[in-house]
Amino acid sequence: MFIVLEGIDGAGKSTQAKLLAEWFENRGYDVVLTKEPTDTPFGKLIRRLVLTGGKEGIIDGGAKISHEAEALLFAADRAEHVDKLIKPSLEAGKVVISDRYFYSSLAYQWARGGLDLEWLIDLNRFAVKPDIVFLLDLPVKESMNRIRSRKVKSEFDKIFELQRRVRENYLKLAEMFPEMKIINAMDDVKTVHNQIIAIIETLLGEK
Amino acid sequence: MFIVLEGIDGAGKSTQAKLLAEWFENRGYDVVLTKEPTDTPFGKLIRRLVLTGGKEGIIDGGAKISHEAEALLFAADRAEHVDKLIKPSLEAGKVVISDRYFYSSLAYQWARGGLDLEWLIDLNRFAVKPDIVFLLDLPVKESMNRIRSRKVKSEFDKIFELQRRVRENYLKLAEMFPEMKIINAMDDVKTVHNQIIAIIETLLGEK
Repeated sequence: MFIVLEGIDGAGKSTQAKLLAEWFENRGYDVVLTKEPTDTPFGKLIRRLVLTGGKEGIIDGGAKISHEAEALLFAADRAEHVDKLIKPSLEAGKVVISDRYFYSSLAYQWARGGLDLEWLIDLNRFAVKPDIVFLLDLPVKESMNRIRSRKVKSEFDKIFELQRRVRENYLKLAEMFPEMKIINAMDDVKTVHNQIIAIIETLLGEK
Repeated sequence: MFIVLEGIDGAGKSTQAKLLAEWFENRGYDVVLTKEPTDTPFGKLIRRLVLTGGKEGIIDGGAKISHEAEALLFAADRAEHVDKLIKPSLEAGKVVISDRYFYSSLAYQWARGGLDLEWLIDLNRFAVKPDIVFLLDLPVKESMNRIRSRKVKSEFDKIFELQRRVRENYLKLAEMFPEMKIINAMDDVKTVHNQIIAIIETLLGEK
């Protein structure tokens, strides 16, 4: 079973990924908890060139490399992720839980200058489809409150506007990709976890 | 004017690129002589992961990273090449001569495991089209004689077979892309140069 968590910053993806991994482990499943960008040479290059390029982070859209190169680099990182970890783990019967996957590329890179959604989807054609994607949805104001401490004040407006567009994109993607389930991330951690588990239990029942 | 030189190893691409650059410079043109992979962080990663991964080089197909990741990384390098060098140089009225471009990706990566030509073309959709591409065509036996000194004997058969498929791919690409002109690279350096110049002069006359 391949499960993905998506959402804007502050939505609680990594917290929910950990709780979900524990839930599976307590039931005797072999779980691989992973994330994108990865820790491969590609992931490191992404961190160096895109995420931590000077004062600029992915959510402020300030990458100095071209948008096309950025999209291709994220896809290269994902290709390694799929080839070296996701596919072999699924083939070994493990549960794979990934904090972000290609939906992040679509939502973020589509929100940035001039990239065509169809091209972005084409780039990622190699990516194994998850069984389910939980979109942890949150109003941008709440997201900004949660991540406020991580960011300096001068970046606030730019980040707000990008987060707004990314959230909008995620909601559009949820209409295009039937594997995406929208979860209200305004609720407390326990309630969100229970919502996720209810859906997982239904899926496990069907398998 | 944007000119590309393509061909299998040993075909004389870099020699002809230099001669062509000199020819333009002698006529007062501003020339940018460039190559792929580039010297950007992407190009360096390509060299580290693909071209010099242990004893393995691009022409023996021994990359340890997945074929998809490799194709995406080459495309990311190209996106930076286009964005940072090729486009600005062309806009400044310079002549750009590149030793290899996306036709190399198509010819080599298509020759390797399982990649779909259409996907490879899609990845490279952002790439500015050259005015002309000289395909320096050479029988593989001759190519192998010329590069023999660069390679150890044990790799010979593997390289031969890949070069054979790459040459075949190049010739197929020349039928698909009307900007590609096949040049007989068996001739001596001067004769090949003169063939190239004759075509360039016709193009300049049309401009």
